[in-house]
Amino acid sequence: MKYVYFFGAGKAEGNGQMKEVLGGKGAGLAEMTRIGLPVPAGFTISTEACDFYFKHERKFPKELAAQVKANLAHLEKVTKKKLGDAKDPLLVSVRSGSARSMPGMMETILNLGLNSRSVEGLAQRTGNQRFAYDAYRRFVQMYSSVVIGLPKDELEEKLRTLKNRLKVKDDTQIPADGLMQLVADYREYFKQKTGKAFPEDPHEQLWGAIGAVFESWMGEKAVTYRRVEKITGLLGTAVNVVQMVFGNTGDNSGTGVCFTRDPSTGEKDFFGDFLINAQGEDVVAGIRTPMQLSEMAKRMPKVYKQLEGVRQKLERHYRDMQDLEFTVEDGKLYMLQTRTGKRSPAATFRIAMDMANEGLITREEAIQRIQADDVERLFYPVIAPSTKRDDLAKRKIATGVNAVPGAASGKAIFTAHEAEEWASRGEKVILVRRETSPEDVGGMHVAQGILTATGGKTSHAAVVARGWGKCCIVGCEALDIDYPKKQMHVGGRAISQGDWLTLDGSEGIVYAGQIELARPEPPKAYSIVMGWADKIRRLRVRTNADTPFDSRKAREMGAEGIGLCRTEHMFFKDFEQPEKSIERQLAIQEMIIADTREARQRALDKLLPFQRSDFIGIFEAMDGLPVTIRLIDPPLHEFVPHEKAQQEELAKKIGVPVETVIRRVEQLHEANPMLGHRGCRLAITYPEILEMQVRAIIEAAIECQKRGVKVFPEIMHPLTMAKKELKILGEATRRVADSIIAQHKVKLHYLVGTMIELPRAALLADQIAEVAEFFSFGTNDLTQTTMGLSRDDAGRFLPEYVDEKKAGIFAGDPFQTLDQDGVGMLIEWAIQRGRKTRPNLKVGICGEHGGDAPSVKFCHRAGMDYVSASPFRVPISRLAAAQAVLEEKAAGKKARR
Amino acid sequence: MKYVYFFGAGKAEGNGQMKEVLGGKGAGLAEMTRIGLPVPAGFTISTEACDFYFKHERKFPKELAAQVKANLAHLEKVTKKKLGDAKDPLLVSVRSGSARSMPGMMETILNLGLNSRSVEGLAQRTGNQRFAYDAYRRFVQMYSSVVIGLPKDELEEKLRTLKNRLKVKDDTQIPADGLMQLVADYREYFKQKTGKAFPEDPHEQLWGAIGAVFESWMGEKAVTYRRVEKITGLLGTAVNVVQMVFGNTGDNSGTGVCFTRDPSTGEKDFFGDFLINAQGEDVVAGIRTPMQLSEMAKRMPKVYKQLEGVRQKLERHYRDMQDLEFTVEDGKLYMLQTRTGKRSPAATFRIAMDMANEGLITREEAIQRIQADDVERLFYPVIAPSTKRDDLAKRKIATGVNAVPGAASGKAIFTAHEAEEWASRGEKVILVRRETSPEDVGGMHVAQGILTATGGKTSHAAVVARGWGKCCIVGCEALDIDYPKKQMHVGGRAISQGDWLTLDGSEGIVYAGQIELARPEPPKAYSIVMGWADKIRRLRVRTNADTPFDSRKAREMGAEGIGLCRTEHMFFKDFEQPEKSIERQLAIQEMIIADTREARQRALDKLLPFQRSDFIGIFEAMDGLPVTIRLIDPPLHEFVPHEKAQQEELAKKIGVPVETVIRRVEQLHEANPMLGHRGCRLAITYPEILEMQVRAIIEAAIECQKRGVKVFPEIMHPLTMAKKELKILGEATRRVADSIIAQHKVKLHYLVGTMIELPRAALLADQIAEVAEFFSFGTNDLTQTTMGLSRDDAGRFLPEYVDEKKAGIFAGDPFQTLDQDGVGMLIEWAIQRGRKTRPNLKVGICGEHGGDAPSVKFCHRAGMDYVSASPFRVPISRLAAAQAVLEEKAAGKKARR
Repeated sequence: MKYVYFFGAGKAEGNGQMKEVLGGKGAGLAEMTRIGLPVPAGFTISTEACDFYFKHERKFPKELAAQVKANLAHLEKVTKKKLGDAKDPLLVSVRSGSARSMPGMMETILNLGLNSRSVEGLAQRTGNQRFAYDAYRRFVQMYSSVVIGLPKDELEEKLRTLKNRLKVKDDTQIPADGLMQLVADYREYFKQKTGKAFPEDPHEQLWGAIGAVFESWMGEKAVTYRRVEKITGLLGTAVNVVQMVFGNTGDNSGTGVCFTRDPSTGEKDFFGDFLINAQGEDVVAGIRTPMQLSEMAKRMPKVYKQLEGVRQKLERHYRDMQDLEFTVEDGKLYMLQTRTGKRSPAATFRIAMDMANEGLITREEAIQRIQADDVERLFYPVIAPSTKRDDLAKRKIATGVNAVPGAASGKAIFTAHEAEEWASRGEKVILVRRETSPEDVGGMHVAQGILTATGGKTSHAAVVARGWGKCCIVGCEALDIDYPKKQMHVGGRAISQGDWLTLDGSEGIVYAGQIELARPEPPKAYSIVMGWADKIRRLRVRTNADTPFDSRKAREMGAEGIGLCRTEHMFFKDFEQPEKSIERQLAIQEMIIADTREARQRALDKLLPFQRSDFIGIFEAMDGLPVTIRLIDPPLHEFVPHEKAQQEELAKKIGVPVETVIRRVEQLHEANPMLGHRGCRLAITYPEILEMQVRAIIEAAIECQKRGVKVFPEIMHPLTMAKKELKILGEATRRVADSIIAQHKVKLHYLVGTMIELPRAALLADQIAEVAEFFSFGTNDLTQTTMGLSRDDAGRFLPEYVDEKKAGIFAGDPFQTLDQDGVGMLIEWAIQRGRKTRPNLKVGICGEHGGDAPSVKFCHRAGMDYVSASPFRVPISRLAAAQAVLEEKAAGKKARR
Repeated sequence: MKYVYFFGAGKAEGNGQMKEVLGGKGAGLAEMTRIGLPVPAGFTISTEACDFYFKHERKFPKELAAQVKANLAHLEKVTKKKLGDAKDPLLVSVRSGSARSMPGMMETILNLGLNSRSVEGLAQRTGNQRFAYDAYRRFVQMYSSVVIGLPKDELEEKLRTLKNRLKVKDDTQIPADGLMQLVADYREYFKQKTGKAFPEDPHEQLWGAIGAVFESWMGEKAVTYRRVEKITGLLGTAVNVVQMVFGNTGDNSGTGVCFTRDPSTGEKDFFGDFLINAQGEDVVAGIRTPMQLSEMAKRMPKVYKQLEGVRQKLERHYRDMQDLEFTVEDGKLYMLQTRTGKRSPAATFRIAMDMANEGLITREEAIQRIQADDVERLFYPVIAPSTKRDDLAKRKIATGVNAVPGAASGKAIFTAHEAEEWASRGEKVILVRRETSPEDVGGMHVAQGILTATGGKTSHAAVVARGWGKCCIVGCEALDIDYPKKQMHVGGRAISQGDWLTLDGSEGIVYAGQIELARPEPPKAYSIVMGWADKIRRLRVRTNADTPFDSRKAREMGAEGIGLCRTEHMFFKDFEQPEKSIERQLAIQEMIIADTREARQRALDKLLPFQRSDFIGIFEAMDGLPVTIRLIDPPLHEFVPHEKAQQEELAKKIGVPVETVIRRVEQLHEANPMLGHRGCRLAITYPEILEMQVRAIIEAAIECQKRGVKVFPEIMHPLTMAKKELKILGEATRRVADSIIAQHKVKLHYLVGTMIELPRAALLADQIAEVAEFFSFGTNDLTQTTMGLSRDDAGRFLPEYVDEKKAGIFAGDPFQTLDQDGVGMLIEWAIQRGRKTRPNLKVGICGEHGGDAPSVKFCHRAGMDYVSASPFRVPISRLAAAQAVLEEKAAGKKARR
């Protein structure tokens, strides 16, 4: 079994396709070597070795030792240096790198190979003793904390004590002998803590580092990150052992991070940060504020020109925007990493469109480059355009680096841990930190926005937040944060924990207080790429909307009709005339409290005009498009008050004794309301409710038709479990509808169908299709019943089921992404059986899953006609539907090959 | 289309096989005619005509008029009489008769054909004017109430007034001119009420009667009866138009009802009632107390001998015990009906056994003759043998006719309506009536027992109660019932509504007060026939038992192991040492309140010895048989108190603040506990519970093995939904079990399996079978989830779903009889898929359905290895399993033909 892959001197055993085995970094290094870019030599230990390690009680595969030995020898030959050499020692970096980028989540050890002998060799060769001992103290510090697990703080404390003693402020001001003393202190501390001397043998150092990198794959940070990012199915991390190059050998050296296009806007600008005389981690850590590439072009014109050439070569080679790391050592450029660059949602669209227009990729590829999250984040809020300028000016307290666009309002919280706590209580928070580190990922994820005092656009905070499309301002140096007091001072104000802040990530401005936010207008590239997607997809995309307002919004988002209009929402609120809401509530409550059919009918007569006018508004908003209306679904107890005071009020208002109300509310109590008297079961026991609702729908449709509006009503019965049940309801529906149509002497085409949301209905779909003109899968309830899982209660244990570190039974929350194995099997069966009975059966989905990309793709494959999503998820579904076609095509090609 | 079938003069167009079309009565008349028995001529209008009638807005099929006309002409020819003839008129009875006996539920009109002319003809021919006018007044009375719907009471009132005026007590004492006057009164009343004259035209009378019989098929009584008896799938009622014969022409005439064997004991005695000088309805109505057949043998030896011949001929012909109706007119025997006789459960076994031993039927037929209800009723209670004789003697208040054996205790209720009301509140009631009528069926059904003041063993009360195997005493003449006062006087005592009574139906004795009842020892015939069944069946039958006591009982009932032992029941009650129950409850509650793993463990350590000793008792009771133990299943909130006072008590006892208890109870509250944190989800989140339970099982098994008991434990995880979930639990189970086994240095074979009670588990059974050694279908929960139906809440609407007169969506309650279409499809799929993965997968069922005969037959067909039923339903399952084999054989034969 081959576990180690060499690269260097223009040749590489691996290549850019081998991400799964070599990790992103290893594959990039191999590929860059192959295409002739300047890359320091090294080798990559594969992710398969990591996989073996965790599957065999943390033992390395037995072949590994020999393979590492051989590759190390080869590396020494290529570099003409020897590890641990007393004159010109080979130094290496040992870095993690998995198939999916997990920035900062795993470990790195630099300058490995230094010991009390080779440090002198390094000093001799570079003629710079201070540099050599600085490298050595960094190595000892890193090795002690990362490999051995000694506390970082105590090591840092020793550095701080030294600086105090020497009365210097910056690390760079410590002279060589001070660093020597620091190394001695570290080694003493190491011995005291571990009982062993700090390893002198570079091979021992190397194996320690390899193990530490593997271990970091299962570290808490990394596991959390994978869970948050839903990264699964990877083997582990690779380990890259690469000859060290130094950006910190003087002013002709430096280190940088850059993007081949602007990751915020997507414009075709070369974009990056460069730090003179610095080592790689310094840029990412955001401790010093770097210069931009344009500045570097002036300072190092030759190297910059070479870098510009690398940029073009890599973009053409990879056909995508790249995120590069490089080091300049004494005027010589070394490429240390290339990977596909993370970018803002707007940039994602812009780059995809531009590259398609440039002919670098096809339009189909452009569509496949967009992820559901990009679409979602594109509509993340901005400061409402209606906000007054002078109000904004008064509230402005600071300006920083606009790392991730968008706006966010929330309460200022100063630790990641507390941010998670506040967010779990439903509070909106802004996480404010001097800088962020991988430990903060949890708190960053739940925050509305992130604000840091230090760092540039490639700092940890910026990179992580950008990946999520989460509003982020970094390098806001005006912040004076006092962690123990949970407070900060900025612009003459004190902001305490819990005070509101608003961030404008696009401009990099921090405001005090809560400012109204609004959804942004999407960029032009969005409309163009979505247009390409619309031409390709087969699935129609409808929306779940209950009001004329939502209907109009959804239409703007590209909805092609309504797939689910929940009529019961109208019982609670008059969306057009909110002051009339109370009348509606009273009528529905009166209907429920009624104990005779006649009393019920009187209350229903009051509701009829409300429902009719709601439907008129919705039909008008959806002129020319189908509207699926679901008849009343929830159990009646949801409509009545459960508090004594409100019950008394209701009793007074509808003129019955309070005992009647109380008794009725008690009668309505159910042990398991989810499986109780709801859905079409209500229409079976109270046919008069069905009659009122059908009447409202049909009268509204006729009224609209008269006004020239094209209406296509589809009446939907929820929770059907048997053919005969739906037959009874379908007949009742048609009886009411047809008599109204006949009475008005008009023609009106409407459909009668059912939700499929119980396993029994799916199983017996062939029978049910005899009496249904359409099926709409209610996958929320179908998931609940198929898995025996109450969405309201699963919070107690579902997290353990999804947590990879605990039981890890499911890859994700089945209420977010459809359980294709179980629920999906039922859906496929039902569609097949249903269409066997009725070949032109219309089939859609209207659960939350209709707006989830993987689920939409499943719906495409299952042969549905449409999906229905909430208005802001409509574009996600449109895109996923197009991608499903392309994936199908690709799979077809693969199968034909 | 042929709608009418003639019989008479030794020939018949129909035959005994044609029950579905001719109804039971019509088929019997045709068959008796064919085999040469003395049957009056007539014709039968088929059930297909009735079906047509209800499917076409109550119109007769157009062919019917001509066919009735032709058959009537033929009847007139055969009888040599003419309908409406002024000299020797043909009179007919018009009777209902469906494929399944519905005693007294539908209508009959006698003496049809009489009018003001033909009554004189009848008087002339019989030379008995009084007889003719009595027949006429009966006809007018019956026609007015049955066909026209005039109130019975008012008609009866006129008869009563007449008797008062004439100062006579019995109807028979009214002279001819009185009857003439009565007829005139009736006709006048008829005209006054309907605005039309009473019909003189016998054809008009006939069509009115045919329509009335059809209508009675959908009458409330009939519909209720079919619902109670679960009679479905019939076309309707046939109408039998038969020449009248008269049992009331004098002392050489009479009418009788008899059974070819004793319907109570099954003994081979000719058994029946005979009334001299009476018409048919008089016997059934129970108004006069009839003589027994032995008495008749003395009074009419020739006729009796002929009847005895008929008895033998019919039993040989039908190969089953027959229920006969006959009339003797002037010494001549006429057979009016033969049908399979209803019988007591004990008689069912006795007759089946005897007939098999006599060679009349095969043993296989004998097995098929037993119904599940027969078995269930066989174990209906008797007076506990331990009851003291002097106590009984003191309580005895009356003796009546022992119509249906068994005993019953309940509160005396005097109307069927109130009986239903009391029973719906969970009260046990004894229905006490002067006599019962078909209107009372609902109240009779819910009563524990039935007591009437009049009637014999073939009265309405006796026949209906016998069909249900319900304890019944009739003809208890000592009862003096005062309906308005809701009271009766008997044996010097006043019994008011709500006072306890106890009936001994076997002895016919009525006791005051509540007396302890016990399950009877089954008769010898039961053991013999069940033995035949056991030899035939393939399915094993286990039991659901949670205690050593139940386990022993179940073994007596023939259980071959335990299919479901619910461990959580043991948390509440120490069945062997009830005084220790409180300790158990405290320990489980302490475990639940615990908020650390350590505290939980401490509480579990207290539970361990209790569980272990329970399992020892169960293993001992089931020595040599498999025992399936289900780990904890219900949500934890079921174990904690919800009332403040009890919470305080608990807090004090386990030494925590009451707030802790309250908070924990609140935390445990779930919106839909059925779909919540329960089943194996508890073991995923609290693995220490699983560990304690597995430890208790394995330690108990080892302990028993040491004592020489053969143990076969099967550990079952409930509510599995995914393979990985069960894999984790299975591994945890084996880890604990194997380490204990290794520690004890013994060999112990045990299985680890799962319940299949969620649709997802059934759908993915192929995967789950990889990690399960057995499946046990939990069809209670599988029904709930597949149908989205909470068993606790479905009471609100499920009755409408099952009620034929309302929605009628399901044939029966899916929690009683398995929904084979939906849930059954999942079961079949799961078995097929599971066995594909693991060919020797053991498969059973442990829901309530394991004791329901049609469901057991389904389990056989689906290929299960065993069913598990509650102890008293074990024999039902044994029998059904055997019947399933026989049905399969028959179906195979049919398919081969």
